[in-house]
Amino acid sequence: MTSHLLTGIGELVTNDPSYDGSLGVLGNAALVIEAGEVAWVGPQAEAPDADTREDLGGRAVIPGFVDSHAHLVFAGDRSAEFAARMAGESYSAGGIRTTVAATRAATDEQLAAHVARHLAEMRRQGTTTVEIKSGYGLSVRDEARGLAVASQFTTETTFLGAHVVPPEYADDPAGYVDLVTGPMLEAAAPYATWVDAFCERGAFDADQSRAVLRAGMAKGLKPRLHANQLGPGPGVQLACELGLVAVDHCTHLDDADVAALAGSGTIATLLPGAEFSTRSPYPDARRLLDAGVTVALATDCNPGSSYTSSMPFCLAVAVRDMGMTPAEALWACTAGGAAALGREDVGHLGVGARAHLAVLDAPSYVHLAYRPGVPLVLDVRA
Amino acid sequence: MTSHLLTGIGELVTNDPSYDGSLGVLGNAALVIEAGEVAWVGPQAEAPDADTREDLGGRAVIPGFVDSHAHLVFAGDRSAEFAARMAGESYSAGGIRTTVAATRAATDEQLAAHVARHLAEMRRQGTTTVEIKSGYGLSVRDEARGLAVASQFTTETTFLGAHVVPPEYADDPAGYVDLVTGPMLEAAAPYATWVDAFCERGAFDADQSRAVLRAGMAKGLKPRLHANQLGPGPGVQLACELGLVAVDHCTHLDDADVAALAGSGTIATLLPGAEFSTRSPYPDARRLLDAGVTVALATDCNPGSSYTSSMPFCLAVAVRDMGMTPAEALWACTAGGAAALGREDVGHLGVGARAHLAVLDAPSYVHLAYRPGVPLVLDVRA
Repeated sequence: MTSHLLTGIGELVTNDPSYDGSLGVLGNAALVIEAGEVAWVGPQAEAPDADTREDLGGRAVIPGFVDSHAHLVFAGDRSAEFAARMAGESYSAGGIRTTVAATRAATDEQLAAHVARHLAEMRRQGTTTVEIKSGYGLSVRDEARGLAVASQFTTETTFLGAHVVPPEYADDPAGYVDLVTGPMLEAAAPYATWVDAFCERGAFDADQSRAVLRAGMAKGLKPRLHANQLGPGPGVQLACELGLVAVDHCTHLDDADVAALAGSGTIATLLPGAEFSTRSPYPDARRLLDAGVTVALATDCNPGSSYTSSMPFCLAVAVRDMGMTPAEALWACTAGGAAALGREDVGHLGVGARAHLAVLDAPSYVHLAYRPGVPLVLDVRA
Repeated sequence: MTSHLLTGIGELVTNDPSYDGSLGVLGNAALVIEAGEVAWVGPQAEAPDADTREDLGGRAVIPGFVDSHAHLVFAGDRSAEFAARMAGESYSAGGIRTTVAATRAATDEQLAAHVARHLAEMRRQGTTTVEIKSGYGLSVRDEARGLAVASQFTTETTFLGAHVVPPEYADDPAGYVDLVTGPMLEAAAPYATWVDAFCERGAFDADQSRAVLRAGMAKGLKPRLHANQLGPGPGVQLACELGLVAVDHCTHLDDADVAALAGSGTIATLLPGAEFSTRSPYPDARRLLDAGVTVALATDCNPGSSYTSSMPFCLAVAVRDMGMTPAEALWACTAGGAAALGREDVGHLGVGARAHLAVLDAPSYVHLAYRPGVPLVLDVRA
């Protein structure tokens, strides 16, 4: 078993609060990797010997980003719909059906190539753990094969049969929920870790969402939820009632929603790419943080409402428009994302963590917000 | 003289309105490069023979970005000031003095290395023409050597001695204007194409700015101006009065300012990176476009108020927050930037133009806005 020593780390973000506040920042640091794990972290002057060593020239090192919300199983392109929206048309979840048609028409190989391409793009931007949802198949066959494809790439696969009601069930949404909670779940469950639903006007109401999550839980899947994205709604309260690890979007919250989140410990995963790409008001991260809610950030990467794959971009927008400090936003993109997936092995660089890290072409993690849009991720290890 | 044929261009943005609207978009196109210029453009099926050929696999090709406003002659880092601002402190132009001290302390070699590094970073993001300002020297020696450094890299060098009044002239701003219009201009002019001033409360008023621009013009420099960034002011009216090719920032405009711009033909160069990084309201590009004003976009790359070097980022923000369509924003980043520099050889891909182009890892230029933050520039030719 060989060990590899990284020296010359100008700033090392460990996310271990025992070092220096919540980000656990060490200056002039070193880190030893052994068997894919962090074996030692500390001041460069105290670094142990190792089989190989590498000097990073004063650059900053951060934990790899954990993108806990991405819809990567899809085909097709909705750039024309995007351009029309930017010329004045409003976003509607109905556009999802365009992607459903393209996804159903794609072969497994095409879907896998598409996922692989997006994951490579994410990795170049520093993301080392990605959750992947289904939700553009919306038939027993297409949801199952989408998740089978996703499970080739990540253990964090999410069954989102309850994304929208597909056209063939437009007149029978209850029948569609029966399908999702019955044969579709049966076919999808072997490939899924999580079960999710889009609890929103135009998609699924609280009772339907609860039925989907409960059915998934009965099959051993862990529940999560899309809620309160396009307007106020019952989703966040439902998430807290069910004790979910995370509830995603949280854009339109009333005081009771915020209090429920603070009281339940459910993480609020904010997805600013969606608000950016639909010209919608951003979720108020500051209000949540000030209330004691744990906040994660993720891309929501999907071809309709948020086709960014860039965690640095989401971080910069969260700082600019959601009241987060650069430190809070970086934590939310790393440790926060890991917490939203219930993972303790990623999202930090403490001893024993997976050695998933990004080397920045910058002296400090602050540059991720200070230099918006600039591709600062120089190298990724995972 | 060899010719090089690019085929398989899924979408070619020429900015030649004779093709298809203002962007001059051709589908399934080809382009021939000879002696560094565009020698032929047209449908792939009609492409001529060439000495070498290369297939771009359906990717989009756009003119290289023209960044007409960048402050690259500087040293030091103000990420701590940025982080403090994001924790609630407000932006003040006074922070410029921090960079002045670091710039004066840097050697010519250090300044040149810094410029080269930022230009390489810009090029990786598709920018092929960059204007470079002085303005962090603020002494005869330091302004002249800053411009000498800049002139090694671009012909679009701008003397910005009138950036702020340096500390040593704090009690004698009139004396500083005399210095700028006298010995400093004398020393800087050999290395400069443009003369510029920061016409803003806390920097220079209209009379001082006019004096600086007139002195520069008398030395053969072409005038441009920073105006109406931090609040309403006389700068835009001054720019129109003097018939400037472009006036930059234009964030706080009244109806008379917009009418003056529309009447004068002076281009409004908008710099959304500055508003992004100072949490300020954005300029209203839609209002300007609807009034018939020509709009350019640029990065304002500088270590204080806008440390982005990314034209794609500025484009995406302009679409999201300034009411531009993706087509208008791309035009503003290419042909608009070229027009703001009075350049006809760049910013488009018509026959005879410099063959400065970016290949996108995307089928359409729309993806630059549709996929915010994603580094889509795959390759750059210039």
